[in-house]
Amino acid sequence: MAVNAAALKGFRDLLPGEMLARERIISTIRRIYERYGFVPLSTPALEHRDVLLGYGEEASKQIYLFTDPDGADVGLRFDLTAPLSRVVAEHRDLPRPFKRYQVQPVWRYDKPDPGRFREFLQFDIDTVGATSRAADAEIVAAMHDCLEALGLAFRIRYSSRNVMNALVALLGLDAGMVKPVLRIIDKLDKQGIENVKLELGPGRTDESGAVIEGLGLGDERIATIERFLAIRGETRAATIDEVRAMLGDAEGADTGVADLADIDRFLTAMGIADERVVVDPSIARGLDYYTGPVFEAVLTDAKLERFGSVMGGGRYDGLIEVFTGERTPATGASIGVDRLFSAMQTAGLIEMKPSTADVIVTVMDRKEIVRYGTIAVELRRAGFNTELYLGNQKSIGKQLKYADRQMIPVAVIAGSNEFERGEVSIKDLRVIKETTVEIEERSEWVEKKVGQVTVKQTKMVAEIRRMLSARTERRED
Amino acid sequence: MAVNAAALKGFRDLLPGEMLARERIISTIRRIYERYGFVPLSTPALEHRDVLLGYGEEASKQIYLFTDPDGADVGLRFDLTAPLSRVVAEHRDLPRPFKRYQVQPVWRYDKPDPGRFREFLQFDIDTVGATSRAADAEIVAAMHDCLEALGLAFRIRYSSRNVMNALVALLGLDAGMVKPVLRIIDKLDKQGIENVKLELGPGRTDESGAVIEGLGLGDERIATIERFLAIRGETRAATIDEVRAMLGDAEGADTGVADLADIDRFLTAMGIADERVVVDPSIARGLDYYTGPVFEAVLTDAKLERFGSVMGGGRYDGLIEVFTGERTPATGASIGVDRLFSAMQTAGLIEMKPSTADVIVTVMDRKEIVRYGTIAVELRRAGFNTELYLGNQKSIGKQLKYADRQMIPVAVIAGSNEFERGEVSIKDLRVIKETTVEIEERSEWVEKKVGQVTVKQTKMVAEIRRMLSARTERRED
Repeated sequence: MAVNAAALKGFRDLLPGEMLARERIISTIRRIYERYGFVPLSTPALEHRDVLLGYGEEASKQIYLFTDPDGADVGLRFDLTAPLSRVVAEHRDLPRPFKRYQVQPVWRYDKPDPGRFREFLQFDIDTVGATSRAADAEIVAAMHDCLEALGLAFRIRYSSRNVMNALVALLGLDAGMVKPVLRIIDKLDKQGIENVKLELGPGRTDESGAVIEGLGLGDERIATIERFLAIRGETRAATIDEVRAMLGDAEGADTGVADLADIDRFLTAMGIADERVVVDPSIARGLDYYTGPVFEAVLTDAKLERFGSVMGGGRYDGLIEVFTGERTPATGASIGVDRLFSAMQTAGLIEMKPSTADVIVTVMDRKEIVRYGTIAVELRRAGFNTELYLGNQKSIGKQLKYADRQMIPVAVIAGSNEFERGEVSIKDLRVIKETTVEIEERSEWVEKKVGQVTVKQTKMVAEIRRMLSARTERRED
Repeated sequence: MAVNAAALKGFRDLLPGEMLARERIISTIRRIYERYGFVPLSTPALEHRDVLLGYGEEASKQIYLFTDPDGADVGLRFDLTAPLSRVVAEHRDLPRPFKRYQVQPVWRYDKPDPGRFREFLQFDIDTVGATSRAADAEIVAAMHDCLEALGLAFRIRYSSRNVMNALVALLGLDAGMVKPVLRIIDKLDKQGIENVKLELGPGRTDESGAVIEGLGLGDERIATIERFLAIRGETRAATIDEVRAMLGDAEGADTGVADLADIDRFLTAMGIADERVVVDPSIARGLDYYTGPVFEAVLTDAKLERFGSVMGGGRYDGLIEVFTGERTPATGASIGVDRLFSAMQTAGLIEMKPSTADVIVTVMDRKEIVRYGTIAVELRRAGFNTELYLGNQKSIGKQLKYADRQMIPVAVIAGSNEFERGEVSIKDLRVIKETTVEIEERSEWVEKKVGQVTVKQTKMVAEIRRMLSARTERRED
């Protein structure tokens, strides 16, 4: 009786085509982060409960918590920031600054939706131990370079928590009001300005009929917030000027404006265009722990808007202190790799090729399997990824169908005739595709030898190299 | 109050030097497996309890099992074979053969020891859907190529479960005796032949005083087993001849000998030396589920022997059937990446470099941070991994000490003098190391400009390229 074989609800397998495509994305991002001097870290999947809840019990509903066989309260990591904080506290001799990247899965017990999984891959960078705004600017620049390298149309928006603090001061509100105001502003993208205004003021009733209590701010203050959120200059510098003008000498305005301006100076020196990275005072970022610049990337292609922010982060100078007991400045950003992958797939930027093999060696005569194996060895030594057909299909047509499905571009075919003459036949399987032949007719085309040449075995490697490079050129046309 | 920040017992972080070294190992192995046409797969960390225990409750003591918030019985995967079986059963449209590689952590609740962790990385290859012994031979060949590429001295030993079956038949024992006999033979490496003989016969008392019951075989049978285990020819073919001679016409001998001989023919055609892959009839492999060829790799460097088998596997034609409900032949091998890493470290084969940065741009004058940032951008565009110093140290000596610790080979230094003249100073930090200067004296050497040249900023990229390639050549001498 077979085991009921199913992945857990909200979890999924990545099959070869997806894995290979995801690997390409990861290595692109890794290359860029290393270009900036970030270095890799890996932490365990399981952590002590206390570590995971180090910055608040709020997260606990989302975390897979359990008691391990030792009786310890443990859980699966739900982000890479708590583990980083623990690492910085535990390994006291790490270099400062510690610029680390980390690409590992995290687990969150969320309602699973199409495209939303309970296990997903995060790719984080963080610079620990640097107070300089150059560190924030480099995070933004690295995000910019990644999205550009991936071929996406995007916009990075940044602001600063300090600007929000100054706004609250400008309104004459208590500093304790910053978080409630932020939480409402954070809904701007999803709920729109009218709902945000209602929540800042008298409150509202949502579609489900639930009553959302308002903050009770007066009209004038709400109008100020609305004007503030709408600030958009032609350039980063122009936006910053408007923010400066509006905040005036409100408490903390200097720091907030300096956050914006220093990052702009840096980005401008790096040649990063005003269209690609904008100052956007409406950026709130949900997390409570940010203390300075915050940033997020959205995709600007209309059909990708629904993916929302694919990358985001900010400065969190107070967080790691919870673990180390001493002030430890830090800034960083996180990419949701799976969401990015889905977006790229929607944009047609993902080539889904289920194999990296360049060549398949078909097996016409099973008794000669060792001979076919020797051909495969020769091809591998020459640097081709080569699959020796090991399946149970005897017909060459069916073996080529398998190769076709695996999108292997070249097949080697040899039978007793070829062996006698020291030859092999080499078939360009893409030519067959281009002649739009139905796969059912394959056997016929095998006979007609479309896209097929027969060469001395000594010329095999050279001929395949020619065939593969001709293909590459064609593709690049 | 700080959180008690410690990794869980039996778990560990991989810091950048270790991560980078491990990545090099993984990409070497991946390259070889792709050369053979294997394709990647990823499965979730969590699986249904039934999937994990699909081939026996025995494993349950080692598995992290718990009830998830949905109330489902789940656990962390403890190997990559159970998930593969589930994938083959769940995705019925996978190609056949399905040649997949998978490199993911697994979790086992074992007694943690130095060098033995509860989370460790496994790198598996398996070919599903191929009955041909060429599939087994390719697994062995791929293992061979991996260990060779990693620069290790090794020996791969193989045999077949069918040979063991024939031996048991030769002894006139019931087929049910195969597993008990195997389990004892499996202890040969650790316990030695005398203890194995005692356990096959009357039993023995181990060092702790515990009584181990014997199988009760008579002296003649034990002598036959001993002779069988000791078979070693000069070549694979010679060993196979001896096995054939000894098994005679015992039931199943033909199949067993054919397992050995077909793999040998293949390996010989591939040019794999008799010293590197041997036939060893004493190989048992602990797992019950093997049905044909079995193989394992040991390191032959005397100081690495304690690492035991770093790679092993075999054919398991009955296992996936538990999941699919239909006969699904499969063969594969698994690498314990962490154990391999430790062995390579012991052998001095691991270069532990904590950063991939080629250049550090030091910051003499913080007010000019944007200018230094521009230099970093230029270097990154030229293809150098470049770290802009973002730490809090103002002294160039201390910044160079940081670079030194990160093993960054080249530093760019510029102050107002250089900026005025459009120049930069470039320092080869390895030259300083070679002159065995104490780091304490660094500031002095900064002044003396050891290994340092000053060039126009327009020549900076060329000069650094020259410096780095000179270094590479020197290292290769």
